[in-house]
Amino acid sequence: GYGRFGIIHVEGAANETTITSRFRLQIDATAESDSGIVFGARARIQQDNDGSANGDRLGQDSSSNSGAYRADRLEGGINGVRFFVRSGGLEVGVGNIFGAIDSMPGMYPTELGLTGLSYDYIINGAGAFSDTYDSDGNGAAGRNGVEVMYSMGDLSMHLSYAELDTGAAFNGVLEGDRLAAHVAYTFSGWTVALGLQDSDIVTDTEAALTVSGSVGIADLTFGYANNGTQGDAFAINAGFDIGAATRMNVVVLDQENYVDTVYGFGVTHDLGGGTSIRGGIQNNNAGNTVADLGVRFNF
Amino acid sequence: GYGRFGIIHVEGAANETTITSRFRLQIDATAESDSGIVFGARARIQQDNDGSANGDRLGQDSSSNSGAYRADRLEGGINGVRFFVRSGGLEVGVGNIFGAIDSMPGMYPTELGLTGLSYDYIINGAGAFSDTYDSDGNGAAGRNGVEVMYSMGDLSMHLSYAELDTGAAFNGVLEGDRLAAHVAYTFSGWTVALGLQDSDIVTDTEAALTVSGSVGIADLTFGYANNGTQGDAFAINAGFDIGAATRMNVVVLDQENYVDTVYGFGVTHDLGGGTSIRGGIQNNNAGNTVADLGVRFNF
Amino acid sequence: GYGRFGIIHVEGAANETTITSRFRLQIDATAESDSGIVFGARARIQQDNDGSANGDRLGQDSSSNSGAYRADRLEGGINGVRFFVRSGGLEVGVGNIFGAIDSMPGMYPTELGLTGLSYDYIINGAGAFSDTYDSDGNGAAGRNGVEVMYSMGDLSMHLSYAELDTGAAFNGVLEGDRLAAHVAYTFSGWTVALGLQDSDIVTDTEAALTVSGSVGIADLTFGYANNGTQGDAFAINAGFDIGAATRMNVVVLDQENYVDTVYGFGVTHDLGGGTSIRGGIQNNNAGNTVADLGVRFNF
Repeated sequence: GYGRFGIIHVEGAANETTITSRFRLQIDATAESDSGIVFGARARIQQDNDGSANGDRLGQDSSSNSGAYRADRLEGGINGVRFFVRSGGLEVGVGNIFGAIDSMPGMYPTELGLTGLSYDYIINGAGAFSDTYDSDGNGAAGRNGVEVMYSMGDLSMHLSYAELDTGAAFNGVLEGDRLAAHVAYTFSGWTVALGLQDSDIVTDTEAALTVSGSVGIADLTFGYANNGTQGDAFAINAGFDIGAATRMNVVVLDQENYVDTVYGFGVTHDLGGGTSIRGGIQNNNAGNTVADLGVRFNF
Repeated sequence: GYGRFGIIHVEGAANETTITSRFRLQIDATAESDSGIVFGARARIQQDNDGSANGDRLGQDSSSNSGAYRADRLEGGINGVRFFVRSGGLEVGVGNIFGAIDSMPGMYPTELGLTGLSYDYIINGAGAFSDTYDSDGNGAAGRNGVEVMYSMGDLSMHLSYAELDTGAAFNGVLEGDRLAAHVAYTFSGWTVALGLQDSDIVTDTEAALTVSGSVGIADLTFGYANNGTQGDAFAINAGFDIGAATRMNVVVLDQENYVDTVYGFGVTHDLGGGTSIRGGIQNNNAGNTVADLGVRFNF
Repeated sequence: GYGRFGIIHVEGAANETTITSRFRLQIDATAESDSGIVFGARARIQQDNDGSANGDRLGQDSSSNSGAYRADRLEGGINGVRFFVRSGGLEVGVGNIFGAIDSMPGMYPTELGLTGLSYDYIINGAGAFSDTYDSDGNGAAGRNGVEVMYSMGDLSMHLSYAELDTGAAFNGVLEGDRLAAHVAYTFSGWTVALGLQDSDIVTDTEAALTVSGSVGIADLTFGYANNGTQGDAFAINAGFDIGAATRMNVVVLDQENYVDTVYGFGVTHDLGGGTSIRGGIQNNNAGNTVADLGVRFNF
C-alpha cells in the first residue's frame, strides 16, 4: 500500500486550500493449485481525509475541499473484493472488477501531481463512464461484475460485464447492464488499444481508442473516446524525465461537454526507498485551477 | 483466511441464479506468559457479495439472492472479537463466544457445497438456536458472552453463558440469558456428544445429541435435537472419499416445523495448495432446490 | 497491538458490574528515503465491548456499563490516520495528530488498572480539553490537524494546530481552532514540561505544567492545569515496584469543577511474554467507586 499527504488547492471550493491525505493498505491474497492455477483476491483498507472513520461525522463539517465529510461512505474497512482465477495468459475476475474500458492500456498514462487532481484529463471520465475497481466502495461487487482477460505475446484482450441499478432504488431489481471489451496490440514499441462498450447508461463511454509510444525522450499517449451523450473526448499526454530522479507529465484533454479544455502538468521527484515528492497544477473541466503538492511513500 | 466464489441457485429467490462470493481474513493474535498460559484474540475481516462495503448501499438493489444489500450489517471491518486464556486443556473465552451447543462435536459434520447452502441440514438451525461465533456481527460480545472449555484425553466439556436482549429494544436492559453445556467422549473410534441448554428464547435448542464414527469407507454422523417450540430434528450425514482428491457428503435432516425434509449432497475436489472446487445441491427446509458451484482457496 | 479483558465495576452505572474488553491492532507503516528521511502512517483497528461491529446494534441494549452499544461510532475499521515525516529530531505530523498538550511528558504517568478507569486522574481531562490521537474516531483528521515536534538532547518541543467545528453543524465551516505548544526539559533526572494552548472552546486547557522524577523507590509526577472554565486541576502520581514483577501506582487529583477529589491505585503484575494481570480501584470525579481487574496481552 501507500500513504500520501500534502496540500491541495481547488479554486472555488468551499475550502480552497487545505490538507489532503490518503492511507491505502492493499491486501493481495493468493493460493496456487498443484497444476499452477492461481486463485486470488484483492481488497483495500483505505481512508481519505474527507471520509468518516466511524460513522458519527457523515456529512458534518470538515476541512476537506467540499467542506464536509462525505456522506456516501464510511472509510476504514475493506472495499468490495475482486476475486480471480489465473492460468497462463487467461484470467477470470469476479466482484469489484477492473472493467475493460477503465483498465485498457493508455487509459491512465499518468496520475497527475500528488492526488491525480480529479483525473479530469482521463478520456473515460476517471471511471465514471464505465466499470472500475472502486477503492472505497463496492464497485461492481453485488452487481454481478465478471470479466475475462487474455494476453498472448503482444496481444491482450479484456471482456467485462456488470448489471446496473438504473431504475427505482430498493425494488430489488438491477434493470440494466454494461458490456465492454478492449483489444490491445503492441508493435514496434507502439501500443494501440480499442475499447467498445454497450451500456444502459446514456452518458457511458461507447468507444475509446488509445495510441502510446515513445518519440525521443518523450513517452506519448493519444486518446479518443466517444462518451455517449457527454460527447467526444480527445487527449494527449507527454511524459519525460527531466533529471536522474525527476519526471514530468503534461496533459491536455478536450471533451465536448466540459466548460473548458483541461490542461496541466505534474512532477514526481523520487527520493528513493519508495518515497517521492509529487505536485501538479491543472486547469480542470470547469475552468478552475487545481493544484497539489506533497509526499508519497510506498510500504 | 480464505476466499471463495462461484454460482448459486436458490429456487424462488428474487435472483434465482447469481454470483456468490466471500472474502475472509482471519486475525489470530496470541501471547504466552512465562508459565505457559496462552492469551489470545480472534477476529475476522469478512465480506460477502450481499454486504455493503461502505454503508451507502444498505438495503439497495443488488444481484444477491435476496435482491438487495443486507440492511442489517456493514461489511469490511472486524467482527466481534473472541478473547481467551488457555492453559493445558482448560480454556476460558469471552466476547463473541463459540457457544457450547454450536461447537459440540458432530454439530457441523460438513459444509455442503461451496457456501454451506444455508446449513439447513444442521440440527441446531445453523446457530440460530444457540450462541455461535458470529463472523460479521457482534455475536455475544457486548452481551456478556463467556465460556469455559475443558478437555482431558478422550473427554471434553464446554459451558457457555450469554445474556440476551429479549425485551424492548433501546431500554438498556438485557432481560434474558442462555446457559448451555456439552460433554463429549470418544471411545473405540466413535464420539458421542450431549448438549443441554436453558434459554429464555422458546425456539432455542433444549437438548442435542450426536454420534460420529466410521463404518468402512463412510464417516457417519447421527444427530438429534430438541429445538424447543420448533420441535425435534433428526439428521444423518455420510462422508466418503470417491477418488484420491474428491470427497462427497450426503445429508438428510427432518425437523418437525420444516415444510419439507432437507436432503442433498456436496462434493469437494482438492486441487492442491489449499485450492479446491466445491459444489452441492440440496432440497432446503422450504422444499426449494438450492445449488452452488465454485472455487475456494485458503491463504 | 494488544488485547485485554476482565471485569469492571462502575458504581451507579446502568450495568454496575460487567465484562470489559478491547482489541487493538496497530498498523505502523513506514518508508525511508535514500537520505534517511522517514515517512510513515499510524492507524488502529480497535474494538471495545461497547462498540457495534457492523452497525446493526447502534444504541441498542448491551451489557456495557452504559447499558447500550455506543451510538456515536462503529468499530472494526481503521481510525483516523496520523501521517508523519521524520528527520533527525524533527517530526511533522498530519491528520489524527497527538496534540501538544495531550502528549506532553508527565501527562499520562500511568494507565490505572486494566482499562485506565476513565482517566479521571489526568489533568488534561483525558484529552477532552485538547487535541488527542483518537483510537476509534477521526480525531483531528479532516480538521486540518498538523503538528511539529522537535527534540535535541534533553530538550523537546511540540507545536500542534487543528481547526474546530464549534458552530452550526452541517454548514461546511470550521469556525474555530486550537493552537497548542509544549516545551520539556530534563535535568538531574527530573523532567519539567510546560504546555500552553489558545483555543476557541472555553472549557479547553489553557496551561499545563508537569514535574516528574524519582525519590528513592518512587517515581513521582506532579501536575497542574488551568482548564479554562472547568477551573484548575492539581494531581500527584506515585509509582513504585512492590516485588520483582509487580508495580503499583497511586493517584490523586483535585479539579475545581469535579464533584469529588479523584483518588485511587492500580497494580500491574507482569506474567512475562507481554502478558500481565492488571487491576485498579478509584474514587472517580463524581464520587463513585470504579474498579476493574483482568488480563492484558501484547502482540
